[in-house]
Amino acid sequence: MTLLPSRLSLNTVTVREQWSLEQCIDGCIRHGFGGIAPWRHDLHDCGIDTAAKLIRESGLKVSGLIRGGFFTADGLTVSDAVIDDNKRAVDEALAIGADCLVMVVGGLAKDTKDLHGARMAVAHGLHELMIYARPAGMPIAIEPLHPMYAADRGCINTMRQVNELCDELGPGVGAAVDVYHTWWDPNLEREIEAAGPNRLMAFHVCDWLVPTRDLLLDRGMMGDGVIDLSLIRSYVEAQGYTGLIEVEIFSRDNWWRKDPDDVLETVIRRAKEFV
Amino acid sequence: MTLLPSRLSLNTVTVREQWSLEQCIDGCIRHGFGGIAPWRHDLHDCGIDTAAKLIRESGLKVSGLIRGGFFTADGLTVSDAVIDDNKRAVDEALAIGADCLVMVVGGLAKDTKDLHGARMAVAHGLHELMIYARPAGMPIAIEPLHPMYAADRGCINTMRQVNELCDELGPGVGAAVDVYHTWWDPNLEREIEAAGPNRLMAFHVCDWLVPTRDLLLDRGMMGDGVIDLSLIRSYVEAQGYTGLIEVEIFSRDNWWRKDPDDVLETVIRRAKEFV
Repeated sequence: MTLLPSRLSLNTVTVREQWSLEQCIDGCIRHGFGGIAPWRHDLHDCGIDTAAKLIRESGLKVSGLIRGGFFTADGLTVSDAVIDDNKRAVDEALAIGADCLVMVVGGLAKDTKDLHGARMAVAHGLHELMIYARPAGMPIAIEPLHPMYAADRGCINTMRQVNELCDELGPGVGAAVDVYHTWWDPNLEREIEAAGPNRLMAFHVCDWLVPTRDLLLDRGMMGDGVIDLSLIRSYVEAQGYTGLIEVEIFSRDNWWRKDPDDVLETVIRRAKEFV
Repeated sequence: MTLLPSRLSLNTVTVREQWSLEQCIDGCIRHGFGGIAPWRHDLHDCGIDTAAKLIRESGLKVSGLIRGGFFTADGLTVSDAVIDDNKRAVDEALAIGADCLVMVVGGLAKDTKDLHGARMAVAHGLHELMIYARPAGMPIAIEPLHPMYAADRGCINTMRQVNELCDELGPGVGAAVDVYHTWWDPNLEREIEAAGPNRLMAFHVCDWLVPTRDLLLDRGMMGDGVIDLSLIRSYVEAQGYTGLIEVEIFSRDNWWRKDPDDVLETVIRRAKEFV
């Protein structure tokens, strides 16, 4: 089904070099986006109360707050500081009325090569966090990251791992499915099906460029790469996902250098054509 | 168990900017390597007959010929040209007495986004190839590639996919396990176990650097990155793998600029310490 702009959410990173949070909110309204997905530093720059007020008054939905996680930041034993910071992220997500708090779970602990240990630490950290987030009513969306980020950003790399974690952790935790991280996965369809509607908390789009010139900052606009976006959208919608479709593009040498109104217009046009 | 140089094989790409095939052979002998793994273009540059003679007279084992595959080069229907080229690769692997012919299977077909179709084409191409390779007695080792290469180099990205392909294809086909491509995989141990000794045809080492500055040409020397190499070695050896341990490092800005004798000495020292 053709995507109307009202189904789209703007992840603020997409124009992070051009616009502040206030400007992003105004841009979303001007272009008819249905939602926004800010980063925590956006809120901190603006002040949480001010940011929350601006967002609530804008009428925009919030498809997610980016991001909690990084459970291995202080080592394989999850520190109180890390848990406390994640609890603050839950509070901030509540303050802005976010649909979920997105988790980038963290990679290997510093000076270790213990991938299994890192994954255990993440499970433990999420368990601790859910004790706080579940009664607070804030859904926690684990984002499986592309395997090329396993060392330094996120050691949960497939939807299967997310489902296994959710099985352990119980209700209130699910997945943020980003096509960039998951498109290659031969089990993607079946694991999205296994997740089902309750666990599908967010759906992020961009594209995979060939060639990709940077591991982090060279994501493509929808249609400029090789991901079959409408196919993956059909997987999540077959499970009843009706949430916003969030556009998240890190693009140092291209979209971050363009006029942000042109970027948003392009997002709308490409989403209609390719997602 | 400490690795002696006689267990090591030099993938010629490791010093490709410095040495010809002849120089690689001499270097392997001088440093006591047990084997070598040339690329097809090495053989073509030198002439197949000359290359085969040089390698056989050197007494070096050949842990593999790099590489056949790229089944999707001419589209989702595997062309005769692609199959013929793969058959020539089998002949060349036989000529140099290789333990296996390594497959880099190919990514998406040009101007398509059909990942499932690409994977079907690869299965079909391998099936065609096995009709030739199996009676010829040349083992075919499918190398699962890191998911970051799914679009442009190889759409088989996990050991699980390799095992599923092997189940379909029958005897004579197996896996080349490269730590760079597979270290992140939460199913790695169990899928290496599922592969078992008959399918474990090659074992490649290098390291994953943090940060990685290039998707293709920034592999690390063993010990400079985050992969628990001895752990993964223990997985393959638990299955009875006794073949050579092949060192394959693409490193444009570092090891390709160093004195190649120093590179080989470093390989030996690091293999002993980290693999």
